[in-house]
Amino acid sequence: MKLLIINGPNLNLLGVREKSIYGSESFENYLEKLKTRYPDVDLAYFQSNIEGELINKLHQEGFSVDGIILNAGGYTHTSIALADAISAITSPVMEVHISNIYARESFRHHSYLSSRCKGVICGLGMEGYRLAIEYFLNQPK
Amino acid sequence: MKLLIINGPNLNLLGVREKSIYGSESFENYLEKLKTRYPDVDLAYFQSNIEGELINKLHQEGFSVDGIILNAGGYTHTSIALADAISAITSPVMEVHISNIYARESFRHHSYLSSRCKGVICGLGMEGYRLAIEYFLNQPK
Amino acid sequence: MKLLIINGPNLNLLGVREKSIYGSESFENYLEKLKTRYPDVDLAYFQSNIEGELINKLHQEGFSVDGIILNAGGYTHTSIALADAISAITSPVMEVHISNIYARESFRHHSYLSSRCKGVICGLGMEGYRLAIEYFLNQPK
Amino acid sequence: MKLLIINGPNLNLLGVREKSIYGSESFENYLEKLKTRYPDVDLAYFQSNIEGELINKLHQEGFSVDGIILNAGGYTHTSIALADAISAITSPVMEVHISNIYARESFRHHSYLSSRCKGVICGLGMEGYRLAIEYFLNQPK
Amino acid sequence: MKLLIINGPNLNLLGVREKSIYGSESFENYLEKLKTRYPDVDLAYFQSNIEGELINKLHQEGFSVDGIILNAGGYTHTSIALADAISAITSPVMEVHISNIYARESFRHHSYLSSRCKGVICGLGMEGYRLAIEYFLNQPK
Amino acid sequence: MKLLIINGPNLNLLGVREKSIYGSESFENYLEKLKTRYPDVDLAYFQSNIEGELINKLHQEGFSVDGIILNAGGYTHTSIALADAISAITSPVMEVHISNIYARESFRHHSYLSSRCKGVICGLGMEGYRLAIEYFLNQPK
Amino acid sequence: MKLLIINGPNLNLLGVREKSIYGSESFENYLEKLKTRYPDVDLAYFQSNIEGELINKLHQEGFSVDGIILNAGGYTHTSIALADAISAITSPVMEVHISNIYARESFRHHSYLSSRCKGVICGLGMEGYRLAIEYFLNQPK
Amino acid sequence: MKLLIINGPNLNLLGVREKSIYGSESFENYLEKLKTRYPDVDLAYFQSNIEGELINKLHQEGFSVDGIILNAGGYTHTSIALADAISAITSPVMEVHISNIYARESFRHHSYLSSRCKGVICGLGMEGYRLAIEYFLNQPK
Amino acid sequence: MKLLIINGPNLNLLGVREKSIYGSESFENYLEKLKTRYPDVDLAYFQSNIEGELINKLHQEGFSVDGIILNAGGYTHTSIALADAISAITSPVMEVHISNIYARESFRHHSYLSSRCKGVICGLGMEGYRLAIEYFLNQPK
Amino acid sequence: MKLLIINGPNLNLLGVREKSIYGSESFENYLEKLKTRYPDVDLAYFQSNIEGELINKLHQEGFSVDGIILNAGGYTHTSIALADAISAITSPVMEVHISNIYARESFRHHSYLSSRCKGVICGLGMEGYRLAIEYFLNQPK
Amino acid sequence: MKLLIINGPNLNLLGVREKSIYGSESFENYLEKLKTRYPDVDLAYFQSNIEGELINKLHQEGFSVDGIILNAGGYTHTSIALADAISAITSPVMEVHISNIYARESFRHHSYLSSRCKGVICGLGMEGYRLAIEYFLNQPK
Amino acid sequence: MKLLIINGPNLNLLGVREKSIYGSESFENYLEKLKTRYPDVDLAYFQSNIEGELINKLHQEGFSVDGIILNAGGYTHTSIALADAISAITSPVMEVHISNIYARESFRHHSYLSSRCKGVICGLGMEGYRLAIEYFLNQPK
Repeated sequence: MKLLIINGPNLNLLGVREKSIYGSESFENYLEKLKTRYPDVDLAYFQSNIEGELINKLHQEGFSVDGIILNAGGYTHTSIALADAISAITSPVMEVHISNIYARESFRHHSYLSSRCKGVICGLGMEGYRLAIEYFLNQPK
Repeated sequence: MKLLIINGPNLNLLGVREKSIYGSESFENYLEKLKTRYPDVDLAYFQSNIEGELINKLHQEGFSVDGIILNAGGYTHTSIALADAISAITSPVMEVHISNIYARESFRHHSYLSSRCKGVICGLGMEGYRLAIEYFLNQPK
Repeated sequence: MKLLIINGPNLNLLGVREKSIYGSESFENYLEKLKTRYPDVDLAYFQSNIEGELINKLHQEGFSVDGIILNAGGYTHTSIALADAISAITSPVMEVHISNIYARESFRHHSYLSSRCKGVICGLGMEGYRLAIEYFLNQPK
Repeated sequence: MKLLIINGPNLNLLGVREKSIYGSESFENYLEKLKTRYPDVDLAYFQSNIEGELINKLHQEGFSVDGIILNAGGYTHTSIALADAISAITSPVMEVHISNIYARESFRHHSYLSSRCKGVICGLGMEGYRLAIEYFLNQPK
Repeated sequence: MKLLIINGPNLNLLGVREKSIYGSESFENYLEKLKTRYPDVDLAYFQSNIEGELINKLHQEGFSVDGIILNAGGYTHTSIALADAISAITSPVMEVHISNIYARESFRHHSYLSSRCKGVICGLGMEGYRLAIEYFLNQPK
Repeated sequence: MKLLIINGPNLNLLGVREKSIYGSESFENYLEKLKTRYPDVDLAYFQSNIEGELINKLHQEGFSVDGIILNAGGYTHTSIALADAISAITSPVMEVHISNIYARESFRHHSYLSSRCKGVICGLGMEGYRLAIEYFLNQPK
Repeated sequence: MKLLIINGPNLNLLGVREKSIYGSESFENYLEKLKTRYPDVDLAYFQSNIEGELINKLHQEGFSVDGIILNAGGYTHTSIALADAISAITSPVMEVHISNIYARESFRHHSYLSSRCKGVICGLGMEGYRLAIEYFLNQPK
Repeated sequence: MKLLIINGPNLNLLGVREKSIYGSESFENYLEKLKTRYPDVDLAYFQSNIEGELINKLHQEGFSVDGIILNAGGYTHTSIALADAISAITSPVMEVHISNIYARESFRHHSYLSSRCKGVICGLGMEGYRLAIEYFLNQPK
Repeated sequence: MKLLIINGPNLNLLGVREKSIYGSESFENYLEKLKTRYPDVDLAYFQSNIEGELINKLHQEGFSVDGIILNAGGYTHTSIALADAISAITSPVMEVHISNIYARESFRHHSYLSSRCKGVICGLGMEGYRLAIEYFLNQPK
Repeated sequence: MKLLIINGPNLNLLGVREKSIYGSESFENYLEKLKTRYPDVDLAYFQSNIEGELINKLHQEGFSVDGIILNAGGYTHTSIALADAISAITSPVMEVHISNIYARESFRHHSYLSSRCKGVICGLGMEGYRLAIEYFLNQPK
Repeated sequence: MKLLIINGPNLNLLGVREKSIYGSESFENYLEKLKTRYPDVDLAYFQSNIEGELINKLHQEGFSVDGIILNAGGYTHTSIALADAISAITSPVMEVHISNIYARESFRHHSYLSSRCKGVICGLGMEGYRLAIEYFLNQPK
Repeated sequence: MKLLIINGPNLNLLGVREKSIYGSESFENYLEKLKTRYPDVDLAYFQSNIEGELINKLHQEGFSVDGIILNAGGYTHTSIALADAISAITSPVMEVHISNIYARESFRHHSYLSSRCKGVICGLGMEGYRLAIEYFLNQPK
């Protein structure tokens, strides 16, 4: 099974940025743990702060991978272009948020992406990415 | 580990009601599968169509169980009283929805409960309940 | 033909409560008249002030009766759970209001139920219940 | 008893227009059935696509007939002038809609007319006109 | 000086309709009084319940008369087409309302016409028409 | 004088729940103090988490007691049915809130009940119930 | 007949301030013309930039004069206190605006005062004050 | 190919009205140019200021012509009845506006018609009508 | 104990103004009764129709008195400056309204002051001031 | 004549993505057809998924080409920066959309770009680009 | 160069009021520092809690000083009258706020004054006043 | 002291674009003047039209420089991602706008950035950048 994790803007600073909200572990470190725990999953990773590059990546991989785990950060709430990209591809996409976006500023309560995604996992910290993998693993092909 | 699943209004009709949205498996059937898969978890279940009985149950169990998995159905979007009950208790609560509520009517996009819960898992069908269990199992006590 | 009339909160006080709006006849009295006028209709009646009990009743009878005449009172405007119950059952439901809700407070102008019901009859006093029976009687089975 | 049915814009196309919503019977045909069923009712009919002509008709007949059954079509949701005309006359007016307007586009959920009318019957197809006649017949003079 | 008074929908019923709001004098009667008081004014009058005929009249007279006194009734609050007609012509237009529209339903508080008119006189009963004449008489040509 | 105190959802947890907001005294304890201080008042008490049971209680007692002191908790902001019940009965109702609801989340700023009640006392802690008693005691019968 | 003209904030600068909107004549100058034209009217004048002083003046004169002509300037759109003062007094009040407030910024389209006043005259320049006098002169005492 | 151009309110004044917005050519003049340029197109033309007559025309021709080019003027933004007429007929309709309605008042930004039309061409002056003809000519029959 | 009652705009007319809403007793008269009933309370009184003078008074006394009872009248709903003054001082402030503001116009339902005050007592007539005194008397110093 | 077509996000997938909405022809293929049909037009093409690159292109070419045909895809509805870029350049810009955006989700009904563009052509499929070329060709230089 | 600093409501309490937001230095103290640093500037100062006195001051000085530095406190967000006063005078006005109003309650995010002022400096503490002086000093006369 | 100026989209066209709003001086030219005036400040400059590159720059420099002066152009009003980047870094950020954004289109009145910045300086032309430098220079390290 081939899965792709895509992280959007500011998520390159995980472990550095606002630790009280996002925790103190870098994503690279966490990714290694995931790879160790799920050795049979071909797990790719991409991060960019540029909206259009996230779209490019979805286009490139979104017709071949078995699932995409997408945390689009701040673009979640503002990007129709990203939502269109999810509709345009054929791989199923899972929306993940580390923090509980519904317990934060009201402008984080709406996501343009959710209605195009398979589902949403939010507020569970890094654990959210792992549960998304669990989900894809348990789906009948 | 002691976990409690609480299902709200109309979820007693799972497997009977609107199968294109909610699937054709009854919750009782699914619950048995969960118990088989997680034999070490003490897994209780409660369903009611009465808002106040859901609150009563939260009060009764919400100071002792290790986690509550709550699918409050239609009350999710209208019940401040239920939200207050979640704030009033000490057990962590995970909000689960079978369907992707963000891909449905706009009045389902707002939840009074989310900001009081640990997190939200939505759109993953019955699998959402299992992932919530996974989450509680992997939390450091 | 089997029909069920369901009255929601405060409608037990008909004939007692705000007579200028709702008239001075009790529903029990009116029900007898209906039974006399339509002797061939098997006419059941249920009233409750508890939202969840209205849902329970819809679940119990909503797969067998030929029609349900529902006046959900104040829950009309606030209950997504009740709307979901109407969607979940197979018997057709007619929404009835005694007073003209569009001529009252603006919060009574929106009904969560209407879009799930066959239709709406409102403002015609007790007569609304009778017209609903007329409607069901004239439908081709 | 003298009753007047007034149909507004596009209702001249009944039986031709969007049959999945409005059915395949012309109103003229249905009107004959009504006259046959209620031989004692003096039943007049008027249709126009012009808002002001509907107002003119209400003015002409609205001080003498025993009841008016009004389906104002698209003007229902936009015409304050029509609402004023209903207030200006003395004959009671019943608002009727063939389709369930609450299950359609949101701009059809508000009616300027309802608060000025005796009541509303909606979603019951042609049957709605008949029930309105039933209502007027059963009112004490 | 040539002035034109245009009355919109339902104003043909003045003296008949809702007397507590609009008074018991017919407009025709009042018009005679105005003509008597202002013998030097060439005072024309037009009334229609049809929006498009009001527009037609504005087009016909709106390039030649010295002033138009317009009470567009219910169209005041809904007609962009009428507002466009006022912008299209060259004669100055005064908006008049018999009742105080700001003390009535909120949908009467907004006028599409006001910003295109010279000014607004409202709430002064029939007297409003006379003051509008006074205004035009006192303007330097 | 016969007074009835009705507490709504979650208020059974007073002294246990969110003490920084609601204080650490149980309502039962406080009730004893009230009875001691006002020995001449016949002071009844009812609590339920079920909206419909609150309505039932209002119906049962609301035609005989001299005053009702109602803290409807979360239902304050969502229950039209409860508001209708207050309108339906004849005993005067005083709305009480322990915390200052206007200094909390915006969804607590609107009460469906206030316009049907005699008045509102809010933000004064348990003391609010006592002042409501004071109010009823000082009203001319 | 005793009339009082009250001008609110910034109207002391008439003839100095934004002449393209308000014209180049001072109000004092215009007042003299009015007194000359209506020698039988006892015409008093008051101007203040302080909201509370406008209220004080309304209180002092508002139980004795035959009419008040009020241009409350910017307070028109923001002052509930001023609106309450108009309700509190017994003299009829006419609201006047020099410019056409409906053709300016949207925050000038709503007036708290209009619904408490007899009527509104707006957009007619200084002439508006004169027409208000005309109105009071023609009212039956 | 048979095409019908329908112009709504105030468009009879093209070349006369607000030339800075709409240009100085009359529509009749422009129509001749169109007929010269597209001699093979059977090009009919209709204009009315009366909403209902526009509906009548759509009903009469809307089941036979190959395409309708509709500039509904001010009714574009207010007429649900006109939108219903477009849905009711079978000929494809192209919405055209001479001016760029999105660069004008905000109430011109919404069109009830657009979602029922094939498409929208706006802001291109008279040229918009010609491009609509081009479009119909290039469609496969 | 030193307490200060501050009344805002139009409350100087109590007993004169709109008696059906505010009663027929002047505040001065009521104040004497309060002083008689609570002889141990040092009870000061201030009234002004000028917003800034209310602020000045709060500044002067708000660091020394034991409690302030504030009825800001119409400024309640419009004055951020007054709200800031309450935050700036150290004496606790109780908001009082004579009428039930929640049963009146919607613009009276929001108070800028409530969130800065200790609590709110509304709808209880003059009695509201007395209960506020009761509250301050029963607080532990 | 030199024209530039700019396509925004996801339009690189034309012919691949959501064919029911956008058709099955790639833009590259269509571009060749356009070049063949209009051999005298110097037709350049640019596509990017990155908002800032679209802005860069507008800056580079927007002072020299005779016209720009812009389909900004999802950025149409969210990008003030793109709108500013259109205002900043001197070449006229035509907004084109392949699908009828007014018949889709409501968030596609508003365009930040339209008011800065010459006009809008929408809903006509690929044909929209050709009509835009036609427009530029027929403009007097 | 002659400059005037005007401070609005509650700013007389600087150094006393909410020190965590506004700091602990009185404005009088700070003013001395400013005068020392800019000896060539003729620096006047005015403070009032009364809205109308702020307007009076603007009228008195606003045609002669070279610049006005205005911190209108809570009136910033509610006073159209103050905004009108800024438009009425000829001296340029700079809006200053000590705290970052955009990081506080949402009702502080809108200023009626900003669009009438030269510019806004906010969130920089007392330093904002100094930068405003710097601005005026560096403007070419 | 090390300071970084970041300019967002379209600001590369300063001196070229809309000179009536932004002036006719290029930013590069102005930057030289700033460097000459503040020789002790190490002043870096970055401009990009790509949102993500602005974020990248903030990440790279935002943990080391003493202050950042950010004019994010059109992204100011739409970018949550940029706001998150400001929260993620440790250097203080000053928001600057050349034009008075509060005197322009309403969509420019809200900034996602302001609440995360130290403060805002707007409307002062190029001078705004210099005052921001002044601010940083005068802060105690």
